[in-house]
Amino acid sequence: MTDIDRQMAIIKRGVAELVDEGELRKKLARQKPLRVKVGFDPTAPDLHLGHTVLMHKMRHFQELGHHVIFLIGDFTGRIGDPSGRSETRPPLTEEQVLANAETYKKQVFKILDPQKTEVAFNSAWLGKMQAADFIKLASCYTVARMMERDDFEKRFREQRPISIHEFLYPLCQGYDSVALKCDVETGGNDQKFNLLVGRNLQAHYGVESQCILTMPLLEGTDGVRKMSKSYGNYIGIDEPPAQIFGKVMGISDALMWRYYELLSSRSLEEIAELRASVENGTTHPKAAKEALAHEMVSRYHSAKAADEARQGFNAVFADGGVPDDMPEHSCTAGEESTPPVFLEAAGLVKSRGEAKRLMREGALSIDGTRCDDMATPLSVGTYVVKLGKKRFLRLKVR
Amino acid sequence: MTDIDRQMAIIKRGVAELVDEGELRKKLARQKPLRVKVGFDPTAPDLHLGHTVLMHKMRHFQELGHHVIFLIGDFTGRIGDPSGRSETRPPLTEEQVLANAETYKKQVFKILDPQKTEVAFNSAWLGKMQAADFIKLASCYTVARMMERDDFEKRFREQRPISIHEFLYPLCQGYDSVALKCDVETGGNDQKFNLLVGRNLQAHYGVESQCILTMPLLEGTDGVRKMSKSYGNYIGIDEPPAQIFGKVMGISDALMWRYYELLSSRSLEEIAELRASVENGTTHPKAAKEALAHEMVSRYHSAKAADEARQGFNAVFADGGVPDDMPEHSCTAGEESTPPVFLEAAGLVKSRGEAKRLMREGALSIDGTRCDDMATPLSVGTYVVKLGKKRFLRLKVR
Repeated sequence: MTDIDRQMAIIKRGVAELVDEGELRKKLARQKPLRVKVGFDPTAPDLHLGHTVLMHKMRHFQELGHHVIFLIGDFTGRIGDPSGRSETRPPLTEEQVLANAETYKKQVFKILDPQKTEVAFNSAWLGKMQAADFIKLASCYTVARMMERDDFEKRFREQRPISIHEFLYPLCQGYDSVALKCDVETGGNDQKFNLLVGRNLQAHYGVESQCILTMPLLEGTDGVRKMSKSYGNYIGIDEPPAQIFGKVMGISDALMWRYYELLSSRSLEEIAELRASVENGTTHPKAAKEALAHEMVSRYHSAKAADEARQGFNAVFADGGVPDDMPEHSCTAGEESTPPVFLEAAGLVKSRGEAKRLMREGALSIDGTRCDDMATPLSVGTYVVKLGKKRFLRLKVR
Repeated sequence: MTDIDRQMAIIKRGVAELVDEGELRKKLARQKPLRVKVGFDPTAPDLHLGHTVLMHKMRHFQELGHHVIFLIGDFTGRIGDPSGRSETRPPLTEEQVLANAETYKKQVFKILDPQKTEVAFNSAWLGKMQAADFIKLASCYTVARMMERDDFEKRFREQRPISIHEFLYPLCQGYDSVALKCDVETGGNDQKFNLLVGRNLQAHYGVESQCILTMPLLEGTDGVRKMSKSYGNYIGIDEPPAQIFGKVMGISDALMWRYYELLSSRSLEEIAELRASVENGTTHPKAAKEALAHEMVSRYHSAKAADEARQGFNAVFADGGVPDDMPEHSCTAGEESTPPVFLEAAGLVKSRGEAKRLMREGALSIDGTRCDDMATPLSVGTYVVKLGKKRFLRLKVR
């Protein structure tokens, strides 16, 4: 196996799409560090594990000795959506952008080496562009090509408005790759179009075209939909240790291997060994899941916090984990999702009075954490509920 | 008749469309001079009478005491089409723009009062715009609305490329009306969409919306197609006096009244009187046409030159004008359109030798000007050919 083959194996780990493998091999063959960019929008600093998939990919590049650029899209963030049509793009103040950037950096540097990471803000070049530069940029792309982006095509077809400035944002983002002379850009699967814009713009501006490498969107704890706060299937990296640990322990075995591939720092070889030992019965699946949960908590808190979370989890689930065949109950968020109400509705207790008495005795745990708050409804999400030593419930709050 | 009615009658003379009459009356009722803009693209300084229709409309406003702004679109002119797709929009140097602007001004001030005309260059504000200002501007318009412009819609449907910067140019032009706080903008009939963009943008920027007033495209001397150099049916304002005079004398009577309405400085009342006197036989149509030809030559040369042109024309067409029933002959430009060749082909002479002999005697005139050049082909256009005293020919060179 050549060095390039070895690098390609690591680079391609977990990747959704790579354009284009031959080109990337040629770039690697020059034996000069590649310039690898990932861009983040500074509007949503509420990070969950789904956001970290790209950072892990950047780490792979960093470990291979390449130059990693963490780009904060502060230019577009500060402008937001001046048409006021999009509620998800309110203009941000400079202070907000900088505060969000700090949050990102704090989290990013739990995965990337800060000494080897360039942090860039695209206002540095986009903010200096004059109208004439902008028109030149806009001349590089046609309306028809821009319309090929799925969401634009759909909105145009459905006669929903697309403001013209929305065509300019992908061009601005793409221009970042021109300004930074990127060799590779990574992004989520849903960013493929924008990444290709960068690749094409580089050709217009006489810069060597970047390869693009898209990562899949991480499935949430339900194993079905992408991880998202609004689906209640996320693991936030700011959540307390016991919560992160418990949520990882609650995922399916199949999803565990997916998370190992996309989120673990273990090498693919180590993961393959672990998987083989689970499959031949040498290692219990629960032990493999605990190791993953421990790694996640260690990264975002500390090894000590991870040890304690494991201890706490095992104290609650003393019989050796969550049974696979626990009953399920669904309810809507609000009155229905307060503990005495759903415990009674699910048939775990005969009355709300009994539920309250047991809760006062400390018998109720939710996702491995003791719960004695009888009044606060659970928010949207899926929970493992345990009452006493033996009664389990998988609760889905919609 | 109120003052507003009187103004409206003059403003509406020859107009193709006015948006919106009620609004314009309200603006006039304030009894403050209106700010009236007309924009010119500094790419084509080769002016013909078709280009002067708008200047006459501006003159009407000026005579009514309003503030007239002659805007040179130097910003877009200097950028041209950076995609290189359009041959009609090559980028111009600053020197070219200024030279073209001078040519325009020289011609414009034959119609407008230079003391009362503001000349503006839109680079003054567009050149200072930053990227963020540009994005705000682009956010005011949707892709779907821009696609309503006929040419965009057609090109998109036919899958011919539209560069994104082409969407930005109407926005830039429209922004001129914001920057200048225009009350009225005039333009050719084919500019209606762009004028409406200005009207809409003003509303976005909190400026009172302008009324728009479009003028018809002047028909060429053939009375059918719009006046254009490429159709060979134009009267250039730099042409020699005899040529302008002769070309005006060659138009149909119906077209003469159209030219009176759109190009003459005479009031509508005077024109109506003249027309009545032609219709009741008091005035010969030829006299009315001569008066129009005289006015045109006087404006672009001098009254003396106009007198001489009339004298020259009548010396050639001594029998009282061009007969209505002269024979027609068509040929293609080149070999076929050299005088001896078409004279023989049309049957006015028996041989090319006879044609040459008559030409040497000075018997051939074309559009009222003696012609003794036997070798140079006539270019595309329609000509009145006269050989000797009686032989006429309407020659169409394709």
